[in-house]
Amino acid sequence: MAEASRTSEAHRDAVFARWVIFSPARSRRPTDLKSHGPANPSPGPDDGAPKPSCPFCLGRESECAPEIFRVPAPDESPSWRIRVIENLFPALRREAAPPAPEDEEPVGAGECAVRGFGFHDVVIETPHHEVRLWDLEAEGVRDVLLAYARRVQQLAEHPAVKYVQVFKNQGASAGASMAHSHSQMLGTPFVPPSVTSRLNCMKEVFERSGKCSLCAVVSKDILVSETHNFSAFVPFAASYPFEIWIVPRQHSSYFHETDQDKVLDLAGLLKSMLQKLLPQLSVIGGFEIGSGCHINPVFPEDAAKILREIDGS
Amino acid sequence: MAEASRTSEAHRDAVFARWVIFSPARSRRPTDLKSHGPANPSPGPDDGAPKPSCPFCLGRESECAPEIFRVPAPDESPSWRIRVIENLFPALRREAAPPAPEDEEPVGAGECAVRGFGFHDVVIETPHHEVRLWDLEAEGVRDVLLAYARRVQQLAEHPAVKYVQVFKNQGASAGASMAHSHSQMLGTPFVPPSVTSRLNCMKEVFERSGKCSLCAVVSKDILVSETHNFSAFVPFAASYPFEIWIVPRQHSSYFHETDQDKVLDLAGLLKSMLQKLLPQLSVIGGFEIGSGCHINPVFPEDAAKILREIDGS
Ligand SMILES: Nc1ncnc2c1ncn2[C@@H]1O[C@H](COP(=O)(O)OP(=O)(O)O[C@H]2O[C@H](CO)[C@@H](O)[C@H](O)[C@H]2O)[C@@H](O)[C@H]1O
Ligand SMILES: Nc1ncnc2c1ncn2[C@@H]1O[C@H](COP(=O)(O)OP(=O)(O)O[C@H]2O[C@H](CO)[C@@H](O)[C@H](O)[C@H]2O)[C@@H](O)[C@H]1O
Repeated sequence: MAEASRTSEAHRDAVFARWVIFSPARSRRPTDLKSHGPANPSPGPDDGAPKPSCPFCLGRESECAPEIFRVPAPDESPSWRIRVIENLFPALRREAAPPAPEDEEPVGAGECAVRGFGFHDVVIETPHHEVRLWDLEAEGVRDVLLAYARRVQQLAEHPAVKYVQVFKNQGASAGASMAHSHSQMLGTPFVPPSVTSRLNCMKEVFERSGKCSLCAVVSKDILVSETHNFSAFVPFAASYPFEIWIVPRQHSSYFHETDQDKVLDLAGLLKSMLQKLLPQLSVIGGFEIGSGCHINPVFPEDAAKILREIDGS
Repeated sequence: MAEASRTSEAHRDAVFARWVIFSPARSRRPTDLKSHGPANPSPGPDDGAPKPSCPFCLGRESECAPEIFRVPAPDESPSWRIRVIENLFPALRREAAPPAPEDEEPVGAGECAVRGFGFHDVVIETPHHEVRLWDLEAEGVRDVLLAYARRVQQLAEHPAVKYVQVFKNQGASAGASMAHSHSQMLGTPFVPPSVTSRLNCMKEVFERSGKCSLCAVVSKDILVSETHNFSAFVPFAASYPFEIWIVPRQHSSYFHETDQDKVLDLAGLLKSMLQKLLPQLSVIGGFEIGSGCHINPVFPEDAAKILREIDGS
């Protein structure tokens, strides 16, 4: 579409079936509120490590909730490279009784409450306070991904765990409370709302067209980078400016079933995408909260072009 | 349920069918990132008005996008009390060609893009820079609500407008770019995602039980306040701490069809709820973005109890 006609557009993708409004003109609006925009970006890496008060640093393991497993250092010093531990302030608790199958009522039955059973773990990605995930070599990032996969596999075997969400908060404006590089995993006793939307939408598309929405999704103009096994691109209905998805190029249903050698390929791509990432640019307002529809000032092709040109390293 | 057993719980409501995790223990987690938590709360009211640079102030009407209608002052001075104007930086544009009915493809057909047609208006709630919505008398709040209703009615008559979302951003941490008290309305050429979820869920509940999820929803423990015609309560699956919904006690499908005298009743309740509202307490992190499931540290009954006890006035 010609640049001039692109004042704004609404897109609905074939993955979530979620409408997003693209409106470049919005980014020119004025503000008289000083602190508009996301809070302070995350502070830069500290100079010294370990930080006296950080329980995720090497040597302070006793201040953490129990360890689930660790990836040892090859030379035993430092004594670990990655630790998967319990979250000391879990949103869901492994000691709670799992809901019985009959506890979860169908949607049409009305309100439903289940006990707070589930698993909430923290993955400490490095023993060093000042190192960020993308500072690691591709092999180091691979080992973090393999730790995710191993823990997802363990949780998948629990009959009451219906989904595992892996996530990473980087910096205070992204909600992080701890500066030391880490990610988290939540194994839930229900399928979360966005996952249900995605499954329903992709099923409907498949039934109608015989196509997998994710396999079919990547066109050249939204592509950021590609490896033998994975594509990184800005989704057609991106909710946030510079949002990036990484999907396998061959059809594959489960992250934790990815071949071990493909995981190194993924790790290299993830590292380079993290190096390109721009600070969070937009705040969610009342329209997004009320309607579930995001307003994104950057069209996916424009974001992809900028991301292709950034050399993050 | 006894206090001791309530370490955490997951709730799914009968309105959105959306899971939320309630986890009071989460609020005790430590942080080593200084700026954790929402950005600076909104600045207090200014001392002087009009503010030299604010286009929403009385006397600066020529710096605004065109007026749609105004509510005049009874004595002609100041010359208006409320103005509904076009948004100068609209997310959707009234000049764009509306999508033809065949432009919107069914979900199963895959990706879908429509031109950025729609209406994006601003409601200036007062001519005075320092006055906030809840500083107005109930009659003043009523007139703002009546201005919404009148504009919704106008937009509803446009065949290509499928939904109108009214929303208000208060303060920078809520995403507001303008300090002067205002709200916004977006008339969209599609039904937004959360509205679709709500309609689908409520339809399913109705077909199964014959009940309206909203009429059935209010129990004493989550009630904050009640008038003859409206209830204000913390929803069973509140996404945010101290979230409040106001719903009519008699079944009613459209806000803009509310009786004129009921609107004064609603305005009084809205004013008193706004006076009780606490600053935004939580930031959304990766789990919420990825899964669509919120983690709320305050159980609805506990939030309702606190809100009942606050004298906001
Ligand atoms: N000694 C210790 N041992 C083990 N674990 C420890 C620990 N000290 C702290 N922790 C845990 O470490 C985690 C650090 O997590 P993050 O910094 O990624 O964000 P957090 O979960 O606080 O909240 C952000 O992410 C969540 C989920 O997206 C949002 O709900 C929330 O609003 C947002 O601020 C916390 O969950 C904390 O409980
Ligand atoms: N002279 C003038 N005449 C007419 N209109 C004028 C004007 N000067 C400014 N405006 C408009 O006034 C509006 C003020 O709105 P708010 O302060 O409520 O939040 P804003 O829409 O900026 O964004 C927040 O809300 C939206 C929607 O929820 C989010 O997308 C976004 O991230 C968040 O920051 C702006 O939309 C602006 O375009």
